Amino acid sequence: MPKIDGLRLLDDLKTLRAYGASGNGVVRTSLTGIDVESRAWLLDRMQQAGLKAEIDGIGNVIGRSPNPGPALLMGSHTDTQPEGGWLDGAMGVIYGLEVARALSEDPDTADLAVDVASWMDEEGTFGICMGSRSFLGQVSDDEIARAKDVNGRGMAESLAAAGYAGRARNRLDPKRNPGYLEAHIEQGGLLENSGKRIGVVTAIVGIRTFRLTFEGAQNHAGTTPMPIRKDAGMALIRLAYRIDETFEAIKGERTVWTMGRIALHPGSHSIVPGFADMFLQFRDPDDARMDRFEMAFRALVEEANAAGPVAISVEPKGEKITPTPMDDSLQAHIAAAAEQDAPGDWIHMPSGAGHDAMIIGDEIPVSMLFVPSIDGISHDFAEDTAEDDIVLGCQVCADAVARIVRGWKGKG
Amino acid sequence: MPKIDGLRLLDDLKTLRAYGASGNGVVRTSLTGIDVESRAWLLDRMQQAGLKAEIDGIGNVIGRSPNPGPALLMGSHTDTQPEGGWLDGAMGVIYGLEVARALSEDPDTADLAVDVASWMDEEGTFGICMGSRSFLGQVSDDEIARAKDVNGRGMAESLAAAGYAGRARNRLDPKRNPGYLEAHIEQGGLLENSGKRIGVVTAIVGIRTFRLTFEGAQNHAGTTPMPIRKDAGMALIRLAYRIDETFEAIKGERTVWTMGRIALHPGSHSIVPGFADMFLQFRDPDDARMDRFEMAFRALVEEANAAGPVAISVEPKGEKITPTPMDDSLQAHIAAAAEQDAPGDWIHMPSGAGHDAMIIGDEIPVSMLFVPSIDGISHDFAEDTAEDDIVLGCQVCADAVARIVRGWKGKG
Repeated sequence: MPKIDGLRLLDDLKTLRAYGASGNGVVRTSLTGIDVESRAWLLDRMQQAGLKAEIDGIGNVIGRSPNPGPALLMGSHTDTQPEGGWLDGAMGVIYGLEVARALSEDPDTADLAVDVASWMDEEGTFGICMGSRSFLGQVSDDEIARAKDVNGRGMAESLAAAGYAGRARNRLDPKRNPGYLEAHIEQGGLLENSGKRIGVVTAIVGIRTFRLTFEGAQNHAGTTPMPIRKDAGMALIRLAYRIDETFEAIKGERTVWTMGRIALHPGSHSIVPGFADMFLQFRDPDDARMDRFEMAFRALVEEANAAGPVAISVEPKGEKITPTPMDDSLQAHIAAAAEQDAPGDWIHMPSGAGHDAMIIGDEIPVSMLFVPSIDGISHDFAEDTAEDDIVLGCQVCADAVARIVRGWKGKG
Repeated sequence: MPKIDGLRLLDDLKTLRAYGASGNGVVRTSLTGIDVESRAWLLDRMQQAGLKAEIDGIGNVIGRSPNPGPALLMGSHTDTQPEGGWLDGAMGVIYGLEVARALSEDPDTADLAVDVASWMDEEGTFGICMGSRSFLGQVSDDEIARAKDVNGRGMAESLAAAGYAGRARNRLDPKRNPGYLEAHIEQGGLLENSGKRIGVVTAIVGIRTFRLTFEGAQNHAGTTPMPIRKDAGMALIRLAYRIDETFEAIKGERTVWTMGRIALHPGSHSIVPGFADMFLQFRDPDDARMDRFEMAFRALVEEANAAGPVAISVEPKGEKITPTPMDDSLQAHIAAAAEQDAPGDWIHMPSGAGHDAMIIGDEIPVSMLFVPSIDGISHDFAEDTAEDDIVLGCQVCADAVARIVRGWKGKG
């Protein structure tokens, strides 16, 4: 089996961090000067690893194995949040690079093919997963022409400044790449809290978000008797309480729900609120369960509306995200590799956050592997993972990739 | 029995409204030019009614009966909210004026004494009930020197500009005024909802207000499993729900409670709130019941803190206002007058809002009478009361005053 080089892996990760380093974290948002510099470095490292590498017309860095296919595609992203962690995205890309090197260095696996990609703009500086969506043919030139960051910087101008404009954009060939593996930090506390070191992802959860508004009547908090109040705030509290109680009763093992925003109007301690609004979001790997959650909370809203006296409205917010199941066969290979390298120290778990794998999953079987996040922190300079865990995760990937590609070649 | 002149009463009220009129409402905040003009008019009307009237060093307009005492003191305020109703305060003052006229015009009551006052700044432009507190000796020259409105306009400069500075400030003489009656619009919807026309006030309610803060841990709404969350917002919702449920179970006939302000931090639909805060206010005429409410909610907080994982703190906000009971004997006379003029159409009720009577009650027996507010609206240009109700309320006051003062003179 292939043996990865932990020091080389960590060295590459730390070198990449230096592009935009801020303390333990990184500021390397898409298509800034430092991001473009880091892509040139990554291209060079891919070429040194023997990959046929290029940066395409949307800035995706793709290194292809010189071996004939089928090739497992490994990837993630090297752009960061405005105040990003050093491993979020970067780790999955450098894992790909190290796995490619490890496979080629072992005579037993030197014939196996792995392709490696860094997808442009997973963090959404210009749009939703621009790089991986481009690779799936989902981004028109017009979308790129219209895409701007919050400061009004255009994506097209930024691509031109980087020297990428006018290049062809790479497109997925499912025959070459019949499967995808993305390794990532967990960004949550489940592994750490379970005392486990590897997460084999079962699905990227679906997300549904709703805005609930409550129309009551604003009144004096001293002179308005309780029975004649139409208190929008109390209607919100009662509904939120019952939603939580009901979700608790019907939840799945990994369901999460959040009421992260509440506003009462006018928001004074001595005025009965006449208007209130809140957001309700829930996530689950199972779309049928998501349907049950939605039905359950809508039934509570109907019941509250029938009882009165406050009128409650429900409006979906943002896109409804359907769960992306991870491929069973790829999962089985990753689980076998995890059990080999970290016996008993791994679990199956969903991904609560979105990733490029969600996009790639539109066309080919996809899979993900997680390593623990210290204190569950991400999207913060303080994000980190123990070096032992970083190295272990990469070894599991290398073993998994060897198993998967051998399987495809009928040598499994 | 004295007979008030309804047309004269309404005419005076409408003339007073013209000072600062805005639609049906009034803008006449304390010591503005229009407020000072209106005080000169009121002084004149008091003198025409045969009262010995003056404006004192804090702008209180006080008209005393030429008759020897004991004199019932009637009063309220003629300053308004920044967007005020035309009757809030003004009605109680003009009632006093009309009652003084009606008593003096009836040979049977011409010997009875009623004194009439408009207290400066009940609406709190410069401070808390500055005029009535001054009349009780509770306002130092230093407090006046420091008092400023929200725009930085000083009370001392405003008194000087009005020509009141340097005048003596009147002081209550309990021998002259052994009792106080303040008529006011209800500012709530209880009378209207009960189909009644007169409220005999039993007490001005006490008020206690608390700020509750919730310290949890901010986390990603997708990647943080429910069992390890420290969701400050959910802790708030659960506590608020239980407080409401508990207060409902132990409430008195007139208890009100309000949670008018809730804030979650950072307040995003996909972030588990790490911090939350809310205000809880409750009001009741009975201080012992207020104690029970406070004990009950503090017990719920302790219980929630013992269960964790969110840490809840309680901090009293603003002054704790003790209920002001209305004098039983004065109440009985007002009730008798109400039953005479509006048989079956009156009720006993508390005042949910504060009034100058709360201050005057520190030294002498006080009483209040309410007339209905249309749709319960106040502190708004739309505030109004049916003219029939305005006239009826004044007649009940006149009859009540005659009964009270006769009683004091041993002629009851």
